[in-house]
Amino acid sequence: MTTHVALVSRAFGSDKIYMSEVDDSIKKTIEDVSSRWGGRSFKIEIIKGWNEMIRNWRKDGGKVVHLTMYGIHIDDAISYLRRENTILAVIGAGKVPREMYDLADYNIAIGNQPHSEVAALSIFLDRMFRGKQFEKNFKDAKLRIIPTARGKRVREVS
Amino acid sequence: MTTHVALVSRAFGSDKIYMSEVDDSIKKTIEDVSSRWGGRSFKIEIIKGWNEMIRNWRKDGGKVVHLTMYGIHIDDAISYLRRENTILAVIGAGKVPREMYDLADYNIAIGNQPHSEVAALSIFLDRMFRGKQFEKNFKDAKLRIIPTARGKRVREVS
Repeated sequence: MTTHVALVSRAFGSDKIYMSEVDDSIKKTIEDVSSRWGGRSFKIEIIKGWNEMIRNWRKDGGKVVHLTMYGIHIDDAISYLRRENTILAVIGAGKVPREMYDLADYNIAIGNQPHSEVAALSIFLDRMFRGKQFEKNFKDAKLRIIPTARGKRVREVS
Repeated sequence: MTTHVALVSRAFGSDKIYMSEVDDSIKKTIEDVSSRWGGRSFKIEIIKGWNEMIRNWRKDGGKVVHLTMYGIHIDDAISYLRRENTILAVIGAGKVPREMYDLADYNIAIGNQPHSEVAALSIFLDRMFRGKQFEKNFKDAKLRIIPTARGKRVREVS
């Protein structure tokens, strides 16, 4: 699950992911993916105190969006969220402490039904970037896909 | 992972999910969610031969969309996909047999970078339903969320 969260962050145009729990296998997966498919500028940072990190983020002028099924629906918030400069999106697995709801600048719901933090992050980033994240050029890729109707076409980049 | 796929299918407006591998815990999770949050019409069916099931689907006039990073980009295909009546979206974990690419009516990519089948399914359904899936009324819910800027507001439906 955590690997999927990291892969979505990278593929959907985030600059960086902060994780309070991470094992080396996730870091390795992301490094392998980035070395093959480009975009080595994407970073993973391991943090200890998530609440301290969030407080510092806000102190530095960044905004915090907590994705939760209880929040304001994304489509009702997207116009002002897009006006923010630096956003930290927070997702939690399982029960999230009340403190998080208070620390966030925005508590945002991707629909008000239970589903998946991977889905929530995907839709959030897709809305924020208006789908343009899929046009992003991932630098220094060794391999590039040529979209095709059937099968696989991959070009080696030299 | 599979539980998340099933939860996304339900929350993003699918009628039914077919799974070739399923354990009772997934069925139980979905039933619990549907009994609390509504939408008991959503079904899970366990299938044995995925390829046979897909062939029958097509024989009955349904279309098959295989989500793969190698396919045609969703935004280049969405206008004709929306014209189809009955779509089976297929996602595979790990390496997908070549046969699947040939069985599909459409091989569709949600961006051409590796990420997550949960993310792929989410974006696919979100594009297909133009975000309206989040307005869907899940019938016979016991609980309903009142979207709120901070904390949790849940209404019991009687």
